[in-house]
Amino acid sequence: MSIIVLGTAALDTVTTPSGKRREMLGGSAIHFSMGASFFTQVNLVAIVGSDFPKRHIDFLNKKGVNLTSLVIGGGRTFRWEGEYRGDLNTALTLSTELGVLSSFRPQIAEHQRRIENIFLANVDPDIQRHLLSKMHAPKLVGLDSMNYWIDHKRKALLKLLKEIHIFVANDAEARSLSGETNLIKAAKALRRMGASIVVVKKGEHGVLVYCDDFIFCSPAYPVEKIVDPTGAGDTFAGGFMGYLTKARKADARSIKRAITFGTIMASFNVEGFGLERSAQVSKKDVDRRLAHFKQITSF
Amino acid sequence: MSIIVLGTAALDTVTTPSGKRREMLGGSAIHFSMGASFFTQVNLVAIVGSDFPKRHIDFLNKKGVNLTSLVIGGGRTFRWEGEYRGDLNTALTLSTELGVLSSFRPQIAEHQRRIENIFLANVDPDIQRHLLSKMHAPKLVGLDSMNYWIDHKRKALLKLLKEIHIFVANDAEARSLSGETNLIKAAKALRRMGASIVVVKKGEHGVLVYCDDFIFCSPAYPVEKIVDPTGAGDTFAGGFMGYLTKARKADARSIKRAITFGTIMASFNVEGFGLERSAQVSKKDVDRRLAHFKQITSF
Repeated sequence: MSIIVLGTAALDTVTTPSGKRREMLGGSAIHFSMGASFFTQVNLVAIVGSDFPKRHIDFLNKKGVNLTSLVIGGGRTFRWEGEYRGDLNTALTLSTELGVLSSFRPQIAEHQRRIENIFLANVDPDIQRHLLSKMHAPKLVGLDSMNYWIDHKRKALLKLLKEIHIFVANDAEARSLSGETNLIKAAKALRRMGASIVVVKKGEHGVLVYCDDFIFCSPAYPVEKIVDPTGAGDTFAGGFMGYLTKARKADARSIKRAITFGTIMASFNVEGFGLERSAQVSKKDVDRRLAHFKQITSF
Repeated sequence: MSIIVLGTAALDTVTTPSGKRREMLGGSAIHFSMGASFFTQVNLVAIVGSDFPKRHIDFLNKKGVNLTSLVIGGGRTFRWEGEYRGDLNTALTLSTELGVLSSFRPQIAEHQRRIENIFLANVDPDIQRHLLSKMHAPKLVGLDSMNYWIDHKRKALLKLLKEIHIFVANDAEARSLSGETNLIKAAKALRRMGASIVVVKKGEHGVLVYCDDFIFCSPAYPVEKIVDPTGAGDTFAGGFMGYLTKARKADARSIKRAITFGTIMASFNVEGFGLERSAQVSKKDVDRRLAHFKQITSF
């Protein structure tokens, strides 16, 4: 089993209380790939510009990410610059340069169209829909979005929600799209909008899962030294979807375990700038953190 | 085993999106008593005015709360009026009338001075210290406070922190007193200030416990319809300290279970105005919610 991820590949410039890094490899699909490639083979559907450093291509190849459907366009790679202050919960966007992303139409190789598990990471809902329409037999489709699309492409997003299985949103997005303040009510409303599994990410406060059959509440793995939270949500989604793909099922037990693995992958991500830490995670690291997480959450 | 609680007894007027209630029985020691009396006998140390309705006295007697050290002073009972909007996480204080609380010096009956478990709920740290100095053999002392005392009586509070065992604070208080933004760092700093067990309450996001030997993270019990969050933290502390008193120990296992029972007692509190719901909790209610909480948090 392998998984398709559609999303952004970016060059991120990030300032946090720990320092500043310029033009690091980033983007929703890339962070997702770090979380997911630990569990399964990841097929990247994204676009970069002709200025995209070859060392990043080499790095992704080395991580086993299939780059068949990574388009190298004629312009500049998508760039994002942001800053985190105080409690590091909210990024202040300093600049966004769309570059090749502005004309992105995902291409997907014929043999990849048969892949059943798909994650539509945060990009324009029209692009997400375009990719989904090309897949032959989607079986488990996850969707992420952001407030910008909720505000500007609400209709397209609502339509897409009816075609996917798992909706992953942060608390602000869940509230904004559902119009409900209480997160359980928000998750219920999102369920009614179409997604059979609603995963609400609450950052340092953990995750809430809502399905027809069960709910699940998980705290975040407590990290003392948060260096850079960029991509934590995407890394979480990668660990979550990656584990479900490996498990080949999405029953209550698998979903709970998948949430836990997503939580653990995200905890590594925030301990370094960009992919510094999340790209280096070993099985031993994950096993150790899983055992510790069990210990600090079970009663 | 029984427990002493020092704190406020109040008449609360509260407005929430669910409605408005006038002059309900409230206050830190009263809400604490609702959580704790489920597990153990509670001895109330507080003051009310001559206007305090007899029906509240009858109610507390009926709940088995020992009122030997409840002073009925000559003035008016402490009154608080507040309002909650939006996500109900923060109360807006509309008015505070100290009344008899302004000249409160706790009185405690001789036979109660031998009680070993004590909770110093939120009042002036000087009053908290005064009571503690009268106790013969304090064995497990819990302390709560609020930002007002952190700002205005910081020295007295820091001194008190060295004489207690368990410090219970909400996230804003933990950050403010420790000077640390990251909650684990904040808890560690509070540990260094003296409390051997630090309990950080994060409202709807649950609880973090920090001790030398272990940490523990618990989500809140998910409540869909929050009617009035007033006293949730005190009810939590009551369930927590009440269970520890019943368990007669404070090892890791007992603390984790105590946190869970505190969480569950608090979840009932927010489902009604004032004590409407928390005063009516049956063993069956608690058992059912405990089983559900295990199910939605274990993976």
